[in-house]
Amino acid sequence: VITFDHEQVDLTLLAALADEGAVVRPGTGSLEMAVDKGSMRRTLVEAGLPVPAHEVFAGSDVARSRLGAFGAAHGWPVILKTARGGYDGKGVWRLDDLVAAEAVLAQLADAGALLVEELVPLDAELAVMVARRPNGESVAWPAVETAQVGGVCREVLVPGRLGADVVAAATRLGGQVADLAGAVGVMAVELFWSGGQLLVNEVATRPHNSGHWTIEGAVTSQFENHLRAVLDLPLGPTLPSHPHVASVNIFGGENGEDPSVLLPGALAIEGAHLHLYGKEARPGRKLGHVTVCGDQADVVRERAWAAALALGTPRPAGLALPPGVAS
Amino acid sequence: VITFDHEQVDLTLLAALADEGAVVRPGTGSLEMAVDKGSMRRTLVEAGLPVPAHEVFAGSDVARSRLGAFGAAHGWPVILKTARGGYDGKGVWRLDDLVAAEAVLAQLADAGALLVEELVPLDAELAVMVARRPNGESVAWPAVETAQVGGVCREVLVPGRLGADVVAAATRLGGQVADLAGAVGVMAVELFWSGGQLLVNEVATRPHNSGHWTIEGAVTSQFENHLRAVLDLPLGPTLPSHPHVASVNIFGGENGEDPSVLLPGALAIEGAHLHLYGKEARPGRKLGHVTVCGDQADVVRERAWAAALALGTPRPAGLALPPGVAS
Repeated sequence: VITFDHEQVDLTLLAALADEGAVVRPGTGSLEMAVDKGSMRRTLVEAGLPVPAHEVFAGSDVARSRLGAFGAAHGWPVILKTARGGYDGKGVWRLDDLVAAEAVLAQLADAGALLVEELVPLDAELAVMVARRPNGESVAWPAVETAQVGGVCREVLVPGRLGADVVAAATRLGGQVADLAGAVGVMAVELFWSGGQLLVNEVATRPHNSGHWTIEGAVTSQFENHLRAVLDLPLGPTLPSHPHVASVNIFGGENGEDPSVLLPGALAIEGAHLHLYGKEARPGRKLGHVTVCGDQADVVRERAWAAALALGTPRPAGLALPPGVAS
Repeated sequence: VITFDHEQVDLTLLAALADEGAVVRPGTGSLEMAVDKGSMRRTLVEAGLPVPAHEVFAGSDVARSRLGAFGAAHGWPVILKTARGGYDGKGVWRLDDLVAAEAVLAQLADAGALLVEELVPLDAELAVMVARRPNGESVAWPAVETAQVGGVCREVLVPGRLGADVVAAATRLGGQVADLAGAVGVMAVELFWSGGQLLVNEVATRPHNSGHWTIEGAVTSQFENHLRAVLDLPLGPTLPSHPHVASVNIFGGENGEDPSVLLPGALAIEGAHLHLYGKEARPGRKLGHVTVCGDQADVVRERAWAAALALGTPRPAGLALPPGVAS
C-alpha cells in the first residue's frame, strides 16, 4: 500500500504503474485535473469548455509583473490560487490591488505554480456529480445549487432556484468535463453561473460534499455509484427521490462543543438526517452535514438549517437564512 | 462483555442487572417475549390481543396425549414449535396427524417447552415494525405484506395488496404489542390475516428482515430509528418515501455460487438496491436482499425479483412470480 496526501499524488508513478497494466482508479488523467488547477484549466480551455479568464505562472519574482498585467487587463480584484493543495477556501486569496498582492506573493515564492483568475460576478454557483465507468458510460445527478461563504460550502439545494434549462445545461457540462478527464468513479464539477453563462470553477475526482444529498435524496447515492463505477458495474439511476432536497453543512461552534451532545434537539426536527463524521470538534471545522427531503423547497431548507443550527453550527455571514431560523 | 446466543439469553441475569440500575436494552420484558414463544403467547392473551389457538407443554411423554386432544379439538394438521430457538422455518413442524407427530415428538423430549397451535388458513401475512423509546413514545412504519414459503420470508411488499383499513389496523396492533412488551428499540410484529381477522404470529425485538425495505423506502430506516430509540433520542418519520416498495430476499443457488460474482447482471436492473450480507454462499442460505422503489406496484415487484433471480436465488415453490420473471 502506498498512501499519498491529496496534493502530493505521484502522477508519474501512477502513470508508470498504469503502463505496466495495473488498474489505476480514478485514472491518472482525471487525477491530474483534480490535483493541479493549472492543468485542469488548460485541459478545459483546449477542449473549448468555458472557464474564467485566468493565467498560470510560478510564484517567483516574475509573478508581480504578470499579476499586475492580468489585473490591468481583467480589472481588480483578482483571485489568486495555488495550483495544488487548496480546498475549502484554503490556498485561495482575493487580491484587491497589486499592493495588497505583495504580502501574499511574498509567502508564495516556494508554493509552485500559481493561478490568477478574474473575479467572476456570481449570480449563483452550481455543482454536478457525475459517475463514470472505465468504458466511458456515465450518469449525472441533476446539477444542484450550492452556497459558498468564504470559499466554504454552506448549503446544497436540489434542484435549487435556477431554471430547469440552466440545470440541464449545467448537468450536460458536468458530463463533458468528466468525459474530458477520463474520470473513473464519481467526479464533482463546480460551476459558476454568471451573466447567463456557465463557467467551470473546480473539479474533484471523488465523492464530494455537494453530492452528500444523494444519500437520502436520490435513487442511487454518490457512494454507491462510485463503487459501481470503479468496479465497472452497471450504474444506478440518479433521479432525485423527492421533489426537493436541502443539505446543510455542520461546523464546529465557537465554544468547541461536540455536536453529538446536541443531537436530541436536532433529531426532533422532522425529517432531519444527520451525518456526523466523527471528527474532533473545533470552532469552524466542518464536522458533518444534515439532509432533509420533501415536497416544498422552503420547508426542507428551513428544517435543514434548523437542525444544523441546533447542532451549534455558526450562522453564515452574508447568506440569507430561511425566515423560520433567520433571527 | 457477555455474549449470548439468541435463544440462550440469560433473562435472570439481565433482570438482576436492570434491578441494580444497569441500562438494559431492549428490556427484559420484550426480550422474554422474543425469546420464548410460550411467554409471548401468554402475554398477548392476557392483554386480550388476538393470537392463533394454541397450547404450551413440555416435550415429554405427556406431549402425545395433549397433542392428540388439541388436534381433535382444533382439527389436523396442527403446527408444532419449540418455544425457544426457532427462526426461518427452523424449530417448526406441520403435523398432519398424531402418527406423523410421533417421530417429531421423539426427537423433542429434551427440547424444553413446546407450543402447538392451529393451522391458520392464511389469506395473507403482514409485518409491522415499531420503534419505541424508553419513555414509551413510539412510531410504526406502515404494515407490509410478506410472503413466506416453507416458513421463510421471500418477499416484502409495501403497502402490499390488502386494503388501507387492514394496513392501518395491523399497524395499530403492532404498536399495541410493542407497548405490551415494553420494547425499547425496534420491534417486529408478524401477523396473520385470516378470514377478516388479524392474529399475532411472531415477534422479534430487533431490526428485522421485514423492515429492510425501510433503508431505501422510508424517510427513516429501521436501523436509524433503532439507534435513536435505544439512545433515547427523538424518533424519525416512518413514512414511505415512494408509493411502492418491494424487497426480495436473496438465497444461495443450488450450485453454491457466490451472488457477488453475478452483480453485473443484477445491477443492470433499474433501481435495484442490492444488499449482500457477506455470508458464505450455501444452497438455500439467506445471503442478502434487494429493494426496488417506485410508483407502480407491479414494476417494483418485477424488478426486485428479476434482480434476486439474477443473483442465483432459487425460484420459490408455490409463490406466483411477476409475469416478467415467471417463466
